[in-house]
Amino acid sequence: MLMALSTWQEIEAYLSRSTGIIVPIGSFEQHGPNGLVGTDALCPEIIANAGAADRDDILIAPTFSVGCAQHHLAFPGTITLRPSTMIAAMTDWVASLRRHGFRRIYFLNGHGGNIATIQAAFSEIYADDSFSTDGPGNEAVKMTLRNWWDLSGIEKLCLEMYPKGHGSHATPSEVSVTYFAYPEAVKSASMEPEIAPSGPIRDAHDYRRRFPDGRIGSNPAQSSAQDGEKIVTAAAKALLDDYESFLSAT
Amino acid sequence: MLMALSTWQEIEAYLSRSTGIIVPIGSFEQHGPNGLVGTDALCPEIIANAGAADRDDILIAPTFSVGCAQHHLAFPGTITLRPSTMIAAMTDWVASLRRHGFRRIYFLNGHGGNIATIQAAFSEIYADDSFSTDGPGNEAVKMTLRNWWDLSGIEKLCLEMYPKGHGSHATPSEVSVTYFAYPEAVKSASMEPEIAPSGPIRDAHDYRRRFPDGRIGSNPAQSSAQDGEKIVTAAAKALLDDYESFLSAT
Amino acid sequence: MLMALSTWQEIEAYLSRSTGIIVPIGSFEQHGPNGLVGTDALCPEIIANAGAADRDDILIAPTFSVGCAQHHLAFPGTITLRPSTMIAAMTDWVASLRRHGFRRIYFLNGHGGNIATIQAAFSEIYADDSFSTDGPGNEAVKMTLRNWWDLSGIEKLCLEMYPKGHGSHATPSEVSVTYFAYPEAVKSASMEPEIAPSGPIRDAHDYRRRFPDGRIGSNPAQSSAQDGEKIVTAAAKALLDDYESFLSAT
Amino acid sequence: MLMALSTWQEIEAYLSRSTGIIVPIGSFEQHGPNGLVGTDALCPEIIANAGAADRDDILIAPTFSVGCAQHHLAFPGTITLRPSTMIAAMTDWVASLRRHGFRRIYFLNGHGGNIATIQAAFSEIYADDSFSTDGPGNEAVKMTLRNWWDLSGIEKLCLEMYPKGHGSHATPSEVSVTYFAYPEAVKSASMEPEIAPSGPIRDAHDYRRRFPDGRIGSNPAQSSAQDGEKIVTAAAKALLDDYESFLSAT
Amino acid sequence: MLMALSTWQEIEAYLSRSTGIIVPIGSFEQHGPNGLVGTDALCPEIIANAGAADRDDILIAPTFSVGCAQHHLAFPGTITLRPSTMIAAMTDWVASLRRHGFRRIYFLNGHGGNIATIQAAFSEIYADDSFSTDGPGNEAVKMTLRNWWDLSGIEKLCLEMYPKGHGSHATPSEVSVTYFAYPEAVKSASMEPEIAPSGPIRDAHDYRRRFPDGRIGSNPAQSSAQDGEKIVTAAAKALLDDYESFLSAT
Amino acid sequence: MLMALSTWQEIEAYLSRSTGIIVPIGSFEQHGPNGLVGTDALCPEIIANAGAADRDDILIAPTFSVGCAQHHLAFPGTITLRPSTMIAAMTDWVASLRRHGFRRIYFLNGHGGNIATIQAAFSEIYADDSFSTDGPGNEAVKMTLRNWWDLSGIEKLCLEMYPKGHGSHATPSEVSVTYFAYPEAVKSASMEPEIAPSGPIRDAHDYRRRFPDGRIGSNPAQSSAQDGEKIVTAAAKALLDDYESFLSAT
Ligand code: NI
Ligand code: NI
Ligand code: NI
Ligand code: NI
Ligand code: NI
Ligand code: NI
Repeated sequence: MLMALSTWQEIEAYLSRSTGIIVPIGSFEQHGPNGLVGTDALCPEIIANAGAADRDDILIAPTFSVGCAQHHLAFPGTITLRPSTMIAAMTDWVASLRRHGFRRIYFLNGHGGNIATIQAAFSEIYADDSFSTDGPGNEAVKMTLRNWWDLSGIEKLCLEMYPKGHGSHATPSEVSVTYFAYPEAVKSASMEPEIAPSGPIRDAHDYRRRFPDGRIGSNPAQSSAQDGEKIVTAAAKALLDDYESFLSAT
Repeated sequence: MLMALSTWQEIEAYLSRSTGIIVPIGSFEQHGPNGLVGTDALCPEIIANAGAADRDDILIAPTFSVGCAQHHLAFPGTITLRPSTMIAAMTDWVASLRRHGFRRIYFLNGHGGNIATIQAAFSEIYADDSFSTDGPGNEAVKMTLRNWWDLSGIEKLCLEMYPKGHGSHATPSEVSVTYFAYPEAVKSASMEPEIAPSGPIRDAHDYRRRFPDGRIGSNPAQSSAQDGEKIVTAAAKALLDDYESFLSAT
Repeated sequence: MLMALSTWQEIEAYLSRSTGIIVPIGSFEQHGPNGLVGTDALCPEIIANAGAADRDDILIAPTFSVGCAQHHLAFPGTITLRPSTMIAAMTDWVASLRRHGFRRIYFLNGHGGNIATIQAAFSEIYADDSFSTDGPGNEAVKMTLRNWWDLSGIEKLCLEMYPKGHGSHATPSEVSVTYFAYPEAVKSASMEPEIAPSGPIRDAHDYRRRFPDGRIGSNPAQSSAQDGEKIVTAAAKALLDDYESFLSAT
Repeated sequence: MLMALSTWQEIEAYLSRSTGIIVPIGSFEQHGPNGLVGTDALCPEIIANAGAADRDDILIAPTFSVGCAQHHLAFPGTITLRPSTMIAAMTDWVASLRRHGFRRIYFLNGHGGNIATIQAAFSEIYADDSFSTDGPGNEAVKMTLRNWWDLSGIEKLCLEMYPKGHGSHATPSEVSVTYFAYPEAVKSASMEPEIAPSGPIRDAHDYRRRFPDGRIGSNPAQSSAQDGEKIVTAAAKALLDDYESFLSAT
Repeated sequence: MLMALSTWQEIEAYLSRSTGIIVPIGSFEQHGPNGLVGTDALCPEIIANAGAADRDDILIAPTFSVGCAQHHLAFPGTITLRPSTMIAAMTDWVASLRRHGFRRIYFLNGHGGNIATIQAAFSEIYADDSFSTDGPGNEAVKMTLRNWWDLSGIEKLCLEMYPKGHGSHATPSEVSVTYFAYPEAVKSASMEPEIAPSGPIRDAHDYRRRFPDGRIGSNPAQSSAQDGEKIVTAAAKALLDDYESFLSAT
Repeated sequence: MLMALSTWQEIEAYLSRSTGIIVPIGSFEQHGPNGLVGTDALCPEIIANAGAADRDDILIAPTFSVGCAQHHLAFPGTITLRPSTMIAAMTDWVASLRRHGFRRIYFLNGHGGNIATIQAAFSEIYADDSFSTDGPGNEAVKMTLRNWWDLSGIEKLCLEMYPKGHGSHATPSEVSVTYFAYPEAVKSASMEPEIAPSGPIRDAHDYRRRFPDGRIGSNPAQSSAQDGEKIVTAAAKALLDDYESFLSAT
């Protein structure tokens, strides 16, 4: 069930069934010679929709689509929030959801560079409750973060598919996921070198010097829509299990 | 040309042809008994895509989908940023685009409640240049805001289609636009009263007391996908003209 | 009744009669060759004082005299707040007034460049109430914004007085208002061209290039203290009616 | 020379004569049974105007009229900025003045509760230059703070006039200054006790418990317009000397 | 070489030898029945001092001693910064160090709850360089984060010492490190249950319900000064190697 | 009793005896040719520990060791917070302490440049209570600031010890205090001129031009550990009296 395509009464009715919600969260940033700028926002959105768009007991929030990508700014198309801005925005999102009665908020993340700031935002949000002597009472909220590649079985599947050149940025697995969902956007590009270098991530100038075409450790020329379908199918299923566990955990 | 589905090299190439970009900007908020929570984000996105998705001389940014909707918070599904958060986020978006060489940024807006904050954000962004004695030089940026219903001919068209009960929130025109693009999400609901009341907008508690089902002055039971198609077709064409004028203005 | 010249006991007594207040709000910025830097702060202050300084059922707050004028910074004498600063300052002002029991706050504005930020500030302030499940209860506050030139009959009067060259910045009407109140500050200057150019407003460098002497579309050489008196008299009367409506509205 | 009543060309011409400016800075807050809410903003404005309104080599900025007065919030009429807001606002004021070429900014203060925050704002503003390896070069700015009662000879004069019950808040000297300038606003009130208690300043609730009518250590029943005239005359003269010293100091 | 005990000339001389610095960073928070509130600040400080206090080619900054510990606020003695505050403070620290010519800043961390916010702060700091078209040039700075327990060989050593009940908060290894350095502060307390429960970390109220005496998964009754000495000796040596690698890495 | 070396249960028990706490607060900044960078943080910490480390009815918080020192940034080793950052950090510290039941917070300060910002922070913190109609009730907190050199008798003692060249920055008294506590860090340096110049404090570039070796008005060549012992002994005793008065004051 997609929040975007629901009425408020439908969401009100949903809240009488469940107080959980899945929020896809990603980034807009370069993804190498054949990866889409939207990859990291599209992947969790695609997987969440595959898993739950037709489930009336699971609500999918709009995608928080621009995240923390300062290190990619030397490549056109990258849009970033500063971490402090992202914390402010996530605070407002969670305050809005909480206002309606949502109590379990599951962020399905598509971007490694978001992880630290999402966790910092959780602390910022929890801190308001924690500073209070009385506490949140029955307005207490539980938040969790799951990277889609950390869903059960997914990393193993991806490494089996791409034993060489999976890498860590502009990976063939994430590119394949987007090719499956947007076949009209499949690109072809030669990779030079075949497998991109690896190294630390600092500011954008340093990044472009180290990683001239944007990739880190990957060879996304291996990407295909068929591969993407396999990953999406597996990830969508794993997501349902993981979300269910989150809902039922104490 | 959609930024989300482009590679960074494609955007780099685009920048040698044009330094303009269209940013759909909207809101997630209740839209009455039969309107979608995503209406205000979806409408400018639908219109921009209809006008320019297949034009390689126009780039469409990701949709800035959650805006200023504090007054709708008493209805489930509404997500809002505080104005100060939205200003910070827009500042980061524009700084990112400017970093790549974009110099003309056209915000196509879908939400009346965003107008003030978007304009305040423009001032916040321009202020950095204005405080500087030297000025931005060739990094100067031009921003403009256009509500899709203010595109040439659109308001007239909508009032012809809905001479009674167009109203100002949850209007049949915006609902029709979303029905055209998402026929699977067409809803039916009875409107009681047929035409909703009007009045001032203050905080969310006051809002829900005044406008119990969320609508202001409208009867969106008149909405239809066919109407939506007419509006989208006209608005997409008007957008191209307006954007062209913006690009060529001094 | 002027807050500045009242004791706290007089204001305490006032609050037993009324919970309304008028806050003149303006800007310090260039106003062309013969307009005063203080024009936009002085005009609403002059009009409010003319209407209500001797009314013990209306309280006039101090003038919020420096607003959003980044676009005028290339002209000496302009002082601006960033929009985010102005939102913070207005938030503190309203929190202070609310603390004392004021519940209807009427901002009489003298500067077009303030409008967006004032409305954004309203949303920022209302948002705190809106995020709360319980709501503000009997601490709910109503705020409104009125530009003095939008008071009933005023625009018509000004255009009758100045059918040519009224323009939109450094207008003969606003300059006349200040000449009426500060006859010692009447200036004479030749206008070249007689009627200033018009165009969009962006950063301060762009502004000064477009509008070399600061005016937009106006010929304030037509200004006079006598004209100012007529405008002030009419505006003061219209203000009382409009404020009365605001107080009595639900 | 008053900035409010000058044109931008007059200020541009002034800047060729001097890069100094006097900024009256005060507060809106209760001042006991017979003191005006505007006292602390009015006093520095009155003294600055008395000293320099007719001097074309001294420019007087608009009064920064609302400062830090959280401790007075339990008395109606008090308006306060949070210190962090005041720092932001002062930063914007100084950035605006500096933009035009002002290099020596003299704050004439009327409120003890502002002192700490004004000095903190100076540090905040200087810090931007200090973090820079290159430094401000010829854009370096010098700021100073002077409380009007610390001008040479003024404290001595006030204590001679009021050997008993001068106190530290709602003093007869500050009340007299306002009575001189605004004779229409002279109030009479009995003081009970004659001399108010003294003690530490904390939050507003604590303050009102300690100082039930708002005064600290003072008996402002001694105030008179005649006394005010003496103080203003002496302070205006002392201001000119002190400002001259500031301008000529290295 | 300790910054606290050096003169500025000594640091100036140091900078001609090295542009690197070690910053111990920790937290003040409960550490169970026998752990010290200062544990997480003390551990990295103890290890850094053991490794480098007598090395004139390594400079140790003051300890950033209060970090992100909102989840421990239900236990007395915990002091926390909000993540947004910590980002602001780290930004100022790094700007200060960079001002002097430090270019490699090594944060030796003692608190798991700091990791996300430290990384977010790195992104916030790098973002300023990344938004700039020109980049930082020779003012570019490299920052890294190392938890002391992740130094080479340390986790293995700790798990060998405490095969049962090492846990993740109030661990016997960190408690031992403080006992070694502060033998006067050795505490004894019975642990009930012997090994503390494990679970997720959310707000402080939730935390205290889950972990009634503050520990997570640990039995710190096993702690001893002798164990602490072994850990400190090993960690100090590993720190030197790791820091050396950081300095020499490209 | 040192918070750093206590368990949470010990602090819980302490809170049943006292709700007061001493917070040493200082700065990291150059202190001339023979003074330590940590002087201003070390002095209040040394004095507090000398007075109260062995008193179980007095709790000493961790030292807030980096404060406002922008003016010293042209000398290596200086670390500063911006005033706005320091206000945010102090707000979080006080909120944390208040959460546990601390109600009287005594800041023992070692740095003149901190005074304004500490007082501004107090106002920022009190403001939250003051804006509230209901007030803090029994969660009201009392904060005070004491510079160690203003403790009873200390200034007199220091001026007797150093009748010439005590000065105001890098004074022989503060240097002696650190030499007493850290004899291993005693430095010798020639002072040229013997007594440093005096003057106003502005930005860091201006500061270094005025005060080339960092000192203001002082000759710290007179410093000695023996002198330091006398000062510490006297200050520790005076601290106990002053803190006791603070605890017992209404
Ligand atoms: Ni990715
Ligand atoms: Ni809408
Ligand atoms: Ni105007
Ligand atoms: Ni006063
Ligand atoms: Ni720990
Ligand atoms: Ni010092």
